[in-house]
Amino acid sequence: MRYHLSTLALAAACGWLAPVAPAPAQVPASAPAAPGLNLMPVPAQWQSAPGALRLDRGFSIGFAAPAAPRLYAGATRLLRRLDGRTQLFFTEGMPATGPRPGATLRIEVGRVGALTSGEDESYTLRVDDAGIVLRAATDLGALHGLETLLQLTSSDADGYYFPYIDIRDTPRFVWRGLMLDVARHFMPVEVITRNIDAMAAVKMNVLHLHLTDNQGFRIESKTFPKLHQFSNGEYFTHADIGKIVAYAAERGIRVVPEFDVPTHATSWLAGYPELGSRPGERYVPWTAFGVADPVLDPTRDSTYRFLDRFFAEVLPLFPDEYVHIGGDENRDGKDWRENPAIQAFMKKNGIADNHALQAYFNRRLLKSTDRQRRKIIGWEEILNPGLPSSALVQIWLDKASLFKTTGMGYSALMSKGFYIDLMHPVAEHYLADPVLPEGKDLPPEQLRRILGGEATMWSEMVNAQNVDSRIWPVTAAIAERLWSPAHVRDLDDMYRRLEPTSARLEELGLTHLSSRDVIARSMAGAAGDPAPLHVLLDVAAPLKGRGRNQNHDVHFVTSPLSGFADAANRDPRDARRFNESMRRYLAGGAGAERDRLRAMLALWIANDARMPALVGASPQLAPVAVLSQRLKALAETALALLDTGSADALDGAARERADAAIAAARLPAAGTELQVVDAVAQLLASRAPAAGR
Amino acid sequence: MRYHLSTLALAAACGWLAPVAPAPAQVPASAPAAPGLNLMPVPAQWQSAPGALRLDRGFSIGFAAPAAPRLYAGATRLLRRLDGRTQLFFTEGMPATGPRPGATLRIEVGRVGALTSGEDESYTLRVDDAGIVLRAATDLGALHGLETLLQLTSSDADGYYFPYIDIRDTPRFVWRGLMLDVARHFMPVEVITRNIDAMAAVKMNVLHLHLTDNQGFRIESKTFPKLHQFSNGEYFTHADIGKIVAYAAERGIRVVPEFDVPTHATSWLAGYPELGSRPGERYVPWTAFGVADPVLDPTRDSTYRFLDRFFAEVLPLFPDEYVHIGGDENRDGKDWRENPAIQAFMKKNGIADNHALQAYFNRRLLKSTDRQRRKIIGWEEILNPGLPSSALVQIWLDKASLFKTTGMGYSALMSKGFYIDLMHPVAEHYLADPVLPEGKDLPPEQLRRILGGEATMWSEMVNAQNVDSRIWPVTAAIAERLWSPAHVRDLDDMYRRLEPTSARLEELGLTHLSSRDVIARSMAGAAGDPAPLHVLLDVAAPLKGRGRNQNHDVHFVTSPLSGFADAANRDPRDARRFNESMRRYLAGGAGAERDRLRAMLALWIANDARMPALVGASPQLAPVAVLSQRLKALAETALALLDTGSADALDGAARERADAAIAAARLPAAGTELQVVDAVAQLLASRAPAAGR
Repeated sequence: MRYHLSTLALAAACGWLAPVAPAPAQVPASAPAAPGLNLMPVPAQWQSAPGALRLDRGFSIGFAAPAAPRLYAGATRLLRRLDGRTQLFFTEGMPATGPRPGATLRIEVGRVGALTSGEDESYTLRVDDAGIVLRAATDLGALHGLETLLQLTSSDADGYYFPYIDIRDTPRFVWRGLMLDVARHFMPVEVITRNIDAMAAVKMNVLHLHLTDNQGFRIESKTFPKLHQFSNGEYFTHADIGKIVAYAAERGIRVVPEFDVPTHATSWLAGYPELGSRPGERYVPWTAFGVADPVLDPTRDSTYRFLDRFFAEVLPLFPDEYVHIGGDENRDGKDWRENPAIQAFMKKNGIADNHALQAYFNRRLLKSTDRQRRKIIGWEEILNPGLPSSALVQIWLDKASLFKTTGMGYSALMSKGFYIDLMHPVAEHYLADPVLPEGKDLPPEQLRRILGGEATMWSEMVNAQNVDSRIWPVTAAIAERLWSPAHVRDLDDMYRRLEPTSARLEELGLTHLSSRDVIARSMAGAAGDPAPLHVLLDVAAPLKGRGRNQNHDVHFVTSPLSGFADAANRDPRDARRFNESMRRYLAGGAGAERDRLRAMLALWIANDARMPALVGASPQLAPVAVLSQRLKALAETALALLDTGSADALDGAARERADAAIAAARLPAAGTELQVVDAVAQLLASRAPAAGR
Repeated sequence: MRYHLSTLALAAACGWLAPVAPAPAQVPASAPAAPGLNLMPVPAQWQSAPGALRLDRGFSIGFAAPAAPRLYAGATRLLRRLDGRTQLFFTEGMPATGPRPGATLRIEVGRVGALTSGEDESYTLRVDDAGIVLRAATDLGALHGLETLLQLTSSDADGYYFPYIDIRDTPRFVWRGLMLDVARHFMPVEVITRNIDAMAAVKMNVLHLHLTDNQGFRIESKTFPKLHQFSNGEYFTHADIGKIVAYAAERGIRVVPEFDVPTHATSWLAGYPELGSRPGERYVPWTAFGVADPVLDPTRDSTYRFLDRFFAEVLPLFPDEYVHIGGDENRDGKDWRENPAIQAFMKKNGIADNHALQAYFNRRLLKSTDRQRRKIIGWEEILNPGLPSSALVQIWLDKASLFKTTGMGYSALMSKGFYIDLMHPVAEHYLADPVLPEGKDLPPEQLRRILGGEATMWSEMVNAQNVDSRIWPVTAAIAERLWSPAHVRDLDDMYRRLEPTSARLEELGLTHLSSRDVIARSMAGAAGDPAPLHVLLDVAAPLKGRGRNQNHDVHFVTSPLSGFADAANRDPRDARRFNESMRRYLAGGAGAERDRLRAMLALWIANDARMPALVGASPQLAPVAVLSQRLKALAETALALLDTGSADALDGAARERADAAIAAARLPAAGTELQVVDAVAQLLASRAPAAGR
């Protein structure tokens, strides 16, 4: 029985259970972090022991002292979730409210935690023959411990159990956030609340709501009702916000609102065009995507009076210490350039350029946020002279900015590397360390100013139906990046743990897995069998980046988001399996690998035969049939290569056909790309030694 | 080209497009109602023509006159849903607000309809080479027509189209409701709203919310906050109710609240025990199910003052003309019997028995509902002397009561036959005509007092996760019973149309199909493959009636509802297919039927081999494995019978084994019953002539 060594070393280096653990100063060797366990994020320290605590219907919970409401509610949820996943029908429907001698799980908590950046979130969790003991300085730490316990649930033929273990856990970064864009496509309250539950399950602690943008103003204003009324219909009422903030707080999560100014501002101007920089313009909320010109007029006092009254109304709804003011992508400044009054104002006040004008805007805006006793956050473009030292800068463009910003004394958040809307593989986001390796030599005080990061879920190409599938499970991997020690970066182990982590999220009402079924059934039509679509969805991923809407001329806010690419996802399962098998096969793997490859290739070929009937009944599937045909041709090529065992054995014409099949399979279709083409290309290039059939 | 004849005859008899069509006076011969079309409910009259209007991305909508907001919103939803299911990416994201020359769909509406019982809901819809024209006297009728148009969406290899058709439609009954019990298990706002969308899709018009019961008080009271605070946690705020009522009204649906008094009242008494009939009692909301004793004290003035203030607070939230006061199941009256003060009061006031005491209570309660200008509804037990003629009686125990009640001059709703929580097959509910055959000779004025009916979704055994799967698609069949002409009662045709109707509901966010996937994944565990569970779920149905909680000692409000029986559903698909094949086979069907039967039997046998591994990883599946073994034994029996072709060919021991396999297969397991046992028993009993292998 011994502590995981590299972790121990790290803990010694960092100061154990410090409320704010500074980031480690170097990248340790990557190592499987929690062999056999499905914990995500991996705890800072853990130690296994032989033995297990068997679960039965007598499972019970007690508290050393009367439980505060938030923790009691969390313990009740644990009871319900554990009972649901084991079907044991616990005798006790509710935990005890105070001590219960002999309770299976005993919880000892010091105090109620404050929902502020840097609060103590540590906990210890011990499962042994005396039962389960969870200890934490604050109820926030205890809530994290409850999630860890749920992740420990295991089973064998004899039943359900928790393995004996001793965990001492604390986060690497204090700010572990998810930004959700509810402006491009509105996300109803239940989307927010279920994602809050999922965030809590992976120990995230900040929900950043991007509430306004060119396409919509998503919060009710009683002071300026034309803000929400003139803006694309759907918005959160004050009651909705109250519900969201309370729901989040009950799970230890802060809610930071973003009101994007002075750009991304069309929806402010639809009802109040006098705030805009183009006098007489009749603004309507954008239905397209991209970067728009409309921008607030920073030269008029009335603009600031408006914003001051607006903030006075809405900021009290959000108790958090921060408000996010956006400030991004004022790229061209066209409306400022073309407004003579603004140009005159700049000249008169010695404001050299748009950059300086935005700095001027921010300085004046700060009076309003100060009055509401809020610190500000902004995207990295807000880094201008005069930015107060309390401001927090969110980096999205350039990792070097992170070091520059924190070097200037500002605290910062990292979002570069965490743009999950771009549909890159989980591995990329997982390995995007906010600090390392570039920051390995930063002084500790600068490291401490890197508070953490946020996954950003922009919503141009998602709606309430499939947004969960874009956020999860990738955000669990980002949560681990922000919570676990930096050396926890083994990709295979991460992917191994990601599947059960993802599966467990369904018990919270997440639709990240079921939305694919729903869309596939819709695509197949009422009479069609969606099974062939699932075979394809297991190997195709949506185009990365802005690939599906390259020239902003395909997708608008009213466009459907229930097609093949909307059901497809990053890291499709069978593609990962195929590529892994191919890697092993090409590395000299046994015949079993070849059999596995053959089985998958045969499946894809057979599947293509089922497509014509499906397309006949559901004509929208024509582009999917093209994808299927290309996959079939690719599979036939791969099968031939596996059978001959060597590309050398192909004659020129066959080689040409193989090249053509591979080239065709690389073409996008139905908004997606096949994720198995490189593996076949490597097979072709491998000159693998021939093997008997 | 001709009108459907029996429908024409009916229309002539009933008065065409009368706002309130009296029920037909006899049961016409059952006939396929809409061959080839998937309309549900079937329109009153329709006429097909050769030809189709092809859909393309130029699809557009215009209005003869500026559209009222409700209809405009409905047309916008049609645009979005049609675009989503066809993936055509319509050029126009929004309908025109007024006339648009050449619009694909042109809508002509007389006036905004009132949300009252008996409002004109008729419409006509014509698709021909001039496009689509929808006409209605009210926007409520037009909304129904939009749903019909969506149901007409068809496709072939050339694309999507609407078939040419001429529809004239009006409902048979004016009251087509769904009662949802949000008291036993709370249902969040989004469950309500998505079910409202589904109700609208099948032309239902009343949502009846059962807001209070022994287990919970599910609406906020500002006057008496201990009502919601002392009662199981979850409840609707006033803002929630406002959202629900507005959402429903925008879809042409009324919301009728139920406050169940004087019984089913424990949750009133938890915070305000002084309202109860047992002085000094400390009431807590029930966590069990069944009929409870706690009952309001009808002898004290303070009870009525309390209710009067409560109604004055909450009824304004519900604009409907009716309020439901419950009144059911005051069976034993124990707490009244055992209270000397109540007994003395009865003696003094000449109140003979509990029945008379409840009548007294109702008469006094009416003063409060009158003051709020609401008519009352109650369950059939409220039929007592003194009930005002404006009261509406909801029948649930006894169909004969319907005729008695309406014979006395009261209007009534039928719920007997529509208890969908009991998990009976769709066919039973579909054939439960509120009037016929018993009421075929009723005088027209009495027939008119039968306003319609309500499906009742009691929530002892459902929660937010799977409630949709209990309501849908069965409620679509009930909606047809209440809308379509009485002669529309062909079971095969109903089941044929039910599948596409059910599939389309997913586009509204309903989880009635996906919840099964979710539960199956949870049961299989993160590492397990849920596929074998789906094979079993396709042949097993939950125990009917109260079978899963016979003695009220298994399920409590905190018990899990994510097990096998919660994923299973009435009318499992493969069981229906198997039974139909067996019927045809036993009727002398060709060898193809036998092959079909054999394939299914082989699937069940092979599936059982996959269970041990699954149970090993997920011990909760042990009872499901028992079910699987029994299904396997049953399938082996059936295969042997199919191979020998005759039970006579079995020797005594084989016959005994067959009987045993069938008897075992009839036993419940995992809260379900196999739905294919009768078919095998019929095969055994059939003495079918031997056929070659």
